[in-house]
Amino acid sequence: MTTSITLQDCQARDAADPLAPLRAHFALPADTIYLDGNSLGVAPRAAAERVAQVVKQEWGNDLIRSWNSASWFDLPQRLGDQLAPLIGAGPGEVVCTDSTSINLYKVLSAALNMAREDSPARRRIVSERSNFPTDLYIAEGLCRERGLELVLIEPEEIPAALTADVAVLMLTHVNYRTGAMHDMAAVTAAAHAAGILTVWDLAHSAGAVPVDLNGAGADFSIGCGYKYLNGGPGAPAFVWVHPRHADRFWQPLSGWWGHAAPFQFTPDYQPAPGITRYLCGTQPIISLSALQCGLDVFTAAQALGGMQALRQKSLALTDLFIELVEARCAGHGLGLATPREHAQRGSQVCLTRDIGAYAIVQALIARNVIGDFRKGDGGAGRHKDILRFGFTPLYVGFADVWNAVEHLRQVLDTAEWQRPEFNQQHAVT
Amino acid sequence: MTTSITLQDCQARDAADPLAPLRAHFALPADTIYLDGNSLGVAPRAAAERVAQVVKQEWGNDLIRSWNSASWFDLPQRLGDQLAPLIGAGPGEVVCTDSTSINLYKVLSAALNMAREDSPARRRIVSERSNFPTDLYIAEGLCRERGLELVLIEPEEIPAALTADVAVLMLTHVNYRTGAMHDMAAVTAAAHAAGILTVWDLAHSAGAVPVDLNGAGADFSIGCGYKYLNGGPGAPAFVWVHPRHADRFWQPLSGWWGHAAPFQFTPDYQPAPGITRYLCGTQPIISLSALQCGLDVFTAAQALGGMQALRQKSLALTDLFIELVEARCAGHGLGLATPREHAQRGSQVCLTRDIGAYAIVQALIARNVIGDFRKGDGGAGRHKDILRFGFTPLYVGFADVWNAVEHLRQVLDTAEWQRPEFNQQHAVT
Repeated sequence: MTTSITLQDCQARDAADPLAPLRAHFALPADTIYLDGNSLGVAPRAAAERVAQVVKQEWGNDLIRSWNSASWFDLPQRLGDQLAPLIGAGPGEVVCTDSTSINLYKVLSAALNMAREDSPARRRIVSERSNFPTDLYIAEGLCRERGLELVLIEPEEIPAALTADVAVLMLTHVNYRTGAMHDMAAVTAAAHAAGILTVWDLAHSAGAVPVDLNGAGADFSIGCGYKYLNGGPGAPAFVWVHPRHADRFWQPLSGWWGHAAPFQFTPDYQPAPGITRYLCGTQPIISLSALQCGLDVFTAAQALGGMQALRQKSLALTDLFIELVEARCAGHGLGLATPREHAQRGSQVCLTRDIGAYAIVQALIARNVIGDFRKGDGGAGRHKDILRFGFTPLYVGFADVWNAVEHLRQVLDTAEWQRPEFNQQHAVT
Repeated sequence: MTTSITLQDCQARDAADPLAPLRAHFALPADTIYLDGNSLGVAPRAAAERVAQVVKQEWGNDLIRSWNSASWFDLPQRLGDQLAPLIGAGPGEVVCTDSTSINLYKVLSAALNMAREDSPARRRIVSERSNFPTDLYIAEGLCRERGLELVLIEPEEIPAALTADVAVLMLTHVNYRTGAMHDMAAVTAAAHAAGILTVWDLAHSAGAVPVDLNGAGADFSIGCGYKYLNGGPGAPAFVWVHPRHADRFWQPLSGWWGHAAPFQFTPDYQPAPGITRYLCGTQPIISLSALQCGLDVFTAAQALGGMQALRQKSLALTDLFIELVEARCAGHGLGLATPREHAQRGSQVCLTRDIGAYAIVQALIARNVIGDFRKGDGGAGRHKDILRFGFTPLYVGFADVWNAVEHLRQVLDTAEWQRPEFNQQHAVT
């Protein structure tokens, strides 16, 4: 395959890109091509100042009074309201709190309670074998605790798996390994037709692709604050529950921040109405404040077309990357794990290679082209080792794509990746 | 009652106080007497710079590489090891993570599993009626989920409540309302003699009084990072499990950070050995880093005698406060809710008054003497409205105590507290 695209073409596209000014909102290191925003998003420029304000003024000077004067109390709800439009949720439907894993435990527990109260014979959770592992671990824990069964399948097996003994279908909207995206509305409708509730993990969707939870009629959802939302390392996550379910069940982590009147200090628990009951304990305010800076960029992006415009650019970036890799790195044994169809693609492109995937990623990182590696199943199954590249349209440009592929071409053409220093495995994220 | 103590005496005690240099570690606002460190500790001076470093350098510049290069990965364990000596725990026995409420859910669930596997007839959790409410809410949630019973008693009823149907005795070591402290070793021994496991909440103990979890043979413990540990608003909490129990059970929040090999991305959950399995999801690194600054002050305090020296000063401060209030605010209807006996007192003093407690606290806050108010049961029971004053020996001095009591005297003598602006109730922490 060949391509007529040049670096100059890419630079021209950047010059004409109406979203290009958004890059100035980020403290992107010079000379770095950062294609790992699906693991840890780049720091918004405003974060340093905002965090300094929280530490020096709100905590340092105003101290305990800031719970009221700086509105620390309702920060989880305020950030939830700011996030809501990105995922097709309404005001008062989302809170930013705790971790993705913990929020999953809350909603999966509530979903199981609901499904099984309505139909006790439903004793299965169905999920994808290549779902992000922590989702599977949380489900495994709940199943173990309650004597239920976790059934793992491949995506094409979903229709057949929606049987009368299934309580909950738990999926990650965009697969963390491949970038493959489910049709949320269609899958939700199929699940509902079979009397099954849906839990959607938006870790690789929120801020990356347009999501319409209410439009899809989804039941429960959770997601991550530190990937495409650029909320900072380990930023608090979020949780959404469809308003038709929100008041129906306690979530199991019935802490005081989810109480109807936390400062009455009553000995008995009365859950707050709506999504507030999905809060549990006191939240890490400094980290939450950094997340706000990440959300502020999306608020600024509204004037430039918002998620629809970001999606259009994201697809243009990933299309370009695929075309350039296939043209300029041909003959090096790279495969494509990410769907070519736009409707099935998130905001990342994953390449496969039978050997050397880890080392190639390390060689690129040494050239300041930062993607990441995800291990496969060692060739035994369908999941190969992955070179994963995330494209965040807020701060990645078309020339970045060109340059990244040029580095990849050089790493492959010169066999640079075979150097010993790139082949020593250690902990990776 | 009279006193011969003068402001000059207090100033002399500050001048002679070997712990006085520790105050310089804190960014205490000028002209503020801060007696609310039991609600939100003061910011360590190092926090602003440390947090800026995390945001600008580790997140901003090094990005995803900081999981390894800045050791973000093992921050929960490293902070746990740093905290361990304050609570009589060994290395590798503590992690700093999540919120107090969530950590309580983990250990209470594990304790119930263990107690009931050994003896299924044990179906009660016993706790104090005036335990901090979120502890009761979490226990209530677990009881509801599992068909168990939460029994609430007064502290003097504990011995009679340790019956053969009790699985877990769940207590807060120092009561948040009164500052009354349990004898952890004696209560634990009595519980164990009755075949009952203990869960200790150290929210008002860690960094406030010497704690010896291993010495007491306690089973499970959790505590708060943002009170006496000065970790910042909503700082991550901590969890300890006695090594004899740590490997025995999964905790219910079986997320990837508690997995034996989180980056193998295996679909099945294998808990890490020891306390690491009490981790769940990705942690808020910026907030965790601020907590480290709080712990660093305790490390610095080691050279000055550590927790034993801090305890000695704390008791001297609270003794002084009690003596001065009783001498200089006599005739104003103030009562003492905190035990006079040192062995039964935490690091706070709580006063009672039949009317006006809220307004008196507000009047003091207007004078920059910051304590807080805790509502009682409206005169119906034994729990009166409380004026609560925390004494953190790291940054509170003897002259602060004198001046605080002098402000209290003036507020009472002049009936300043009766002004309308001090009698409008709103949300308080």
